[in-house]
Amino acid sequence: MSFSQRIDNALTQVIRRGQAEPAPGKLASCLDYSVSPGGARIRPTILMSVAAACGDDAPELTDAAAVALELIHCASLVHDDLPCFDDADMRRGKPSLHKAYGEPLAVLTGDSLIIQAFQTLAIAGQIEASRALRLISILSERTGMPHGICAGQGWESEDQIDLRAYHVAKTGALFIAATQMGAAAAGQDPEPWEELGSRIGEAFQVADDLRDALCDQAELGKPAGQDDLHGRPNAVASFGIEGAVTHLRNILGGAIASIPSCPGEAALATMVRAQAERLTPVFATRRTVPGE
Amino acid sequence: MSFSQRIDNALTQVIRRGQAEPAPGKLASCLDYSVSPGGARIRPTILMSVAAACGDDAPELTDAAAVALELIHCASLVHDDLPCFDDADMRRGKPSLHKAYGEPLAVLTGDSLIIQAFQTLAIAGQIEASRALRLISILSERTGMPHGICAGQGWESEDQIDLRAYHVAKTGALFIAATQMGAAAAGQDPEPWEELGSRIGEAFQVADDLRDALCDQAELGKPAGQDDLHGRPNAVASFGIEGAVTHLRNILGGAIASIPSCPGEAALATMVRAQAERLTPVFATRRTVPGE
Repeated sequence: MSFSQRIDNALTQVIRRGQAEPAPGKLASCLDYSVSPGGARIRPTILMSVAAACGDDAPELTDAAAVALELIHCASLVHDDLPCFDDADMRRGKPSLHKAYGEPLAVLTGDSLIIQAFQTLAIAGQIEASRALRLISILSERTGMPHGICAGQGWESEDQIDLRAYHVAKTGALFIAATQMGAAAAGQDPEPWEELGSRIGEAFQVADDLRDALCDQAELGKPAGQDDLHGRPNAVASFGIEGAVTHLRNILGGAIASIPSCPGEAALATMVRAQAERLTPVFATRRTVPGE
Repeated sequence: MSFSQRIDNALTQVIRRGQAEPAPGKLASCLDYSVSPGGARIRPTILMSVAAACGDDAPELTDAAAVALELIHCASLVHDDLPCFDDADMRRGKPSLHKAYGEPLAVLTGDSLIIQAFQTLAIAGQIEASRALRLISILSERTGMPHGICAGQGWESEDQIDLRAYHVAKTGALFIAATQMGAAAAGQDPEPWEELGSRIGEAFQVADDLRDALCDQAELGKPAGQDDLHGRPNAVASFGIEGAVTHLRNILGGAIASIPSCPGEAALATMVRAQAERLTPVFATRRTVPGE
């Protein structure tokens, strides 16, 4: 079964569990709405790729880890789209959740998805208790305060932004979670996997900055030019378009070089290149795919 | 050390961990703001009382469980106060979090507290992995969808409300979590403890309905008459004042009768009576304390 099928199957099961009767119908529908149609599922795919490279000897735990990570990502999109943050009307080519269901259900959907993420890992803990606890530790560290995506978003309310802390928390955190959780799900030490996740996160940030600067709303499926609009720091503003492309290429080279020695090292390097292409469609069409 | 001191000490440690540098300063301050000054800390006190009645042989795990439960409760208050829900200006006698820090930080604070709750339990899992996983399972079940407090709040967006499911989820869920987590932290089967939590939750709901109907804003520390204002179902509207008092007395009698056999059964019954008095100051002043 492909990673994409494994992710979708496991995700569907978890969402169904959250909708068990008696449940409030609209909030139950919101759980589906917020996770489908899927985006590229980049984070859980990276997680599964790392787990596979490490042997993936407990695939149910890997599935649970991938789903938990995707749930957290989807929760962050729902909350980030709220009027008090990005005030985004569109997401993945359809109305954002609060536009479709209203703000109260959008807040509750985000909360519910966060909780389901940890519940999913706790249930999977019946397979391997200590690995599950490690997964919960990694995911919570990379999601909450002081170093997770909540902290990343929180930096945007500060007058003085610690740029490095901001980027690591805002974008890097869930990529670090992806590589570390992949290793931990397969029973490996997550520590050496931080650098790969961190570099993929940096690459993603630069690619996102480039897309935000260059693409229009139809290509993005969400409003373009948001960084500029909200005055957020970004690589294009700092280095220019060509400089940002070079920077992206260097980061991806470093990412591949950082992959810890493991049975599936070569396949993993291929995956990182493939994700890089998905990240940067604007370059693919211009035949300047980074990392090649 | 008293339960109240144990709770405050453990809570302070967890909040400090969430504020470790580099962290966005305002969001770090919000973590403190949202958990202090403490309310009655009813839920973690019940949790510790049940753990004590069951022997409390892993007090660090009990502390972690109590803190996790209180963090979830505080998160729910912050999110429930948002303009899209209760639009409450005041909470515990001071401005609600979004009034003091703005909506973006209020959303993020709630999210961060939820995540810290699960992180706290995962860290405590180094002591007793299987107990910690059980605690995470109970807490997530009683917090998220379909049967936790998120579901309870979600019912308020429905045209047709399943009243029983609504009350169990909205108010009962965290009391059930309190009794079950207390038992689980002490290594006991949480199952027989559901009824006690459920009945305390019912009593709390009726007491809250009575206070909401009878007290003014100064006594409550938050706006009074909210149920009536938002058209929510409540016991006073259904049974009248006297009927609701009788109902409350019956529920508390049933709660005490439901306490499973355990070494600290008598002390626990005393605690339930004491909590009942704290719940219902309006009756205490009228010398008609329920359960006596």
